[in-house]
Amino acid sequence: MKDQTTKIIPTPEGCTAALGPLGDALYAIGGKWKLKIIIALMSGNKRFNELQRQVTGISAKVLSNELKEMELNDFVKKVTSATAKEVTEYELSDYSHTLRDVLTALSAWGTMHRQKITGRTVEQAPYPESILSR
Amino acid sequence: MKDQTTKIIPTPEGCTAALGPLGDALYAIGGKWKLKIIIALMSGNKRFNELQRQVTGISAKVLSNELKEMELNDFVKKVTSATAKEVTEYELSDYSHTLRDVLTALSAWGTMHRQKITGRTVEQAPYPESILSR
Repeated sequence: MKDQTTKIIPTPEGCTAALGPLGDALYAIGGKWKLKIIIALMSGNKRFNELQRQVTGISAKVLSNELKEMELNDFVKKVTSATAKEVTEYELSDYSHTLRDVLTALSAWGTMHRQKITGRTVEQAPYPESILSR
Repeated sequence: MKDQTTKIIPTPEGCTAALGPLGDALYAIGGKWKLKIIIALMSGNKRFNELQRQVTGISAKVLSNELKEMELNDFVKKVTSATAKEVTEYELSDYSHTLRDVLTALSAWGTMHRQKITGRTVEQAPYPESILSR
């Protein structure tokens, strides 16, 4: 676990400048669902219903909207299933894989944050290397 | 710039497991504003009005709610200004600095994403090292 007291001391100009790229990132992949959908698709293509089961809590309507938006922005694409014709699946685009570092950092932080909140140390934290190993 | 076609091939179990920490992270720091508020406070303590000016687009009501939530969750704290008594400022807690890797990864991805969207290469991308240098 990282030293929690590591300080980041940027310049004021640096901070103002950082709000731009951060804003761009949050605009594209912010919100409650997009990163979860991407992680769910990392283990392989999925049909709409499979995806909805894996991303717990998402409604069909919201999932449908998110997927449309993610198609437009080149994060996912619709493909025909390799096993059954006329069955549509969702596949991650190559571009989604550029989010590797973001997902690694968020998962690691989430693990650390849960330990802080629950006040216990998870003996074996399997993230993020094992999940995101190539 | 990173190779955009780098593939992440995790196991299905890894993906399911990753949704937990990612969900924890998004629950704590997801949404439109929290990370922006944290970046804005990195250059130093700020009064409410200064903060609202820097985080463009946020309303006073939303900023107030976000700050309350962030205080409860140990990301910011209220302090008395060093220069003027009876003036309250917001300060980043040590815990916010554990988000260093997340902010670095998001800023770097945001920079890359903007280049993709605008189709041009920024000659000098000052993020994230210069911003987040200690």
